[in-house]
Amino acid sequence: MVCEIKKQSGAAFSLKKGEKLKVIDPKGEQVSDMVLFNAHDTREKISSGKTLDFQESLLITKGDFLWSNRSNKMMKILEDTNGRNDFLLAPCSPETFQIMYDNSNYHPSCFENLYVNLEKFKIEKDDIPTAFNIFMNVQWDNKGELTVEAPLSKAGDYIVFEALTDLIVALTACSAEDSNNGSFKPIHYEILS
Amino acid sequence: MVCEIKKQSGAAFSLKKGEKLKVIDPKGEQVSDMVLFNAHDTREKISSGKTLDFQESLLITKGDFLWSNRSNKMMKILEDTNGRNDFLLAPCSPETFQIMYDNSNYHPSCFENLYVNLEKFKIEKDDIPTAFNIFMNVQWDNKGELTVEAPLSKAGDYIVFEALTDLIVALTACSAEDSNNGSFKPIHYEILS
Repeated sequence: MVCEIKKQSGAAFSLKKGEKLKVIDPKGEQVSDMVLFNAHDTREKISSGKTLDFQESLLITKGDFLWSNRSNKMMKILEDTNGRNDFLLAPCSPETFQIMYDNSNYHPSCFENLYVNLEKFKIEKDDIPTAFNIFMNVQWDNKGELTVEAPLSKAGDYIVFEALTDLIVALTACSAEDSNNGSFKPIHYEILS
Repeated sequence: MVCEIKKQSGAAFSLKKGEKLKVIDPKGEQVSDMVLFNAHDTREKISSGKTLDFQESLLITKGDFLWSNRSNKMMKILEDTNGRNDFLLAPCSPETFQIMYDNSNYHPSCFENLYVNLEKFKIEKDDIPTAFNIFMNVQWDNKGELTVEAPLSKAGDYIVFEALTDLIVALTACSAEDSNNGSFKPIHYEILS
């Protein structure tokens, strides 16, 4: 069953060890932020620092693992038809739009869509780590300057993760203009046994 | 008063808003991992994802701010005589030596030296975020491959931070062979009012 995350929203659900999660960009150029928690102890969670360290790369794609703050493998990436994901930048939050976009009005954000959906698992705002940003296209130069570019994903591109332990997963359809080439689209996901 | 962190050890202390912290590499080629917490609510802490996002750079140096998971500025970097620091890789931990160095024996680590010193502030292992790795020389190529090189810091190089809020600070003299060009040296620090 394919589930839809409507534009600028999110979802959270359990994923058992051995199950696979397919995340699809149905229309193209749409980012999905993902965070992971150990279902049996949510103080263990996905870690960008551990993943970049153990995978020795800024680019995390097919064949790589997503690691936890306790140095355990949480997921393996089995397929990645696009191949460009980001694990550097924090999920967009209300402050992102104030600080980076100079917009002080209410704006939907991945941060809100993660913590609101994770409340049912007793996971709170301060527990949200840096997300694995599926389909997000962050480029760097040799001086380290970072730029957020339009996603390279085309309609139907997907990534498949295998859960290596029992997990709580939260996913968004990202709400930041610059990350999604100026338009907001849904994200689809499917749990495969 | 200059304090010494002996090789492969650490320290933790309070730093008041407005105070300055000078971290010195007295012998050269020695990394110091630093983590920060809000002294009044330790669930607010330094965030690599927020800092790389708001500073729009992989290289964090003079003039830049260190940001928290709640999107607040925790420190400003006032001086940085070396200019090469890392904010990508997690502190070395017992698992680092098992996984990256294939060494299953006990090995001192920044992770242990951070949480042991932070116990007096009731900060636990799982609370330790990705550290700001002062003097650490991590290089990347255009494909994103990361390599840990010998630090570029020479004897006497230093960095000065200004606390923008009341902080708990933990610092190490890093314990990982590859990060310190194969030899372990002390780190000096000084609190300036």
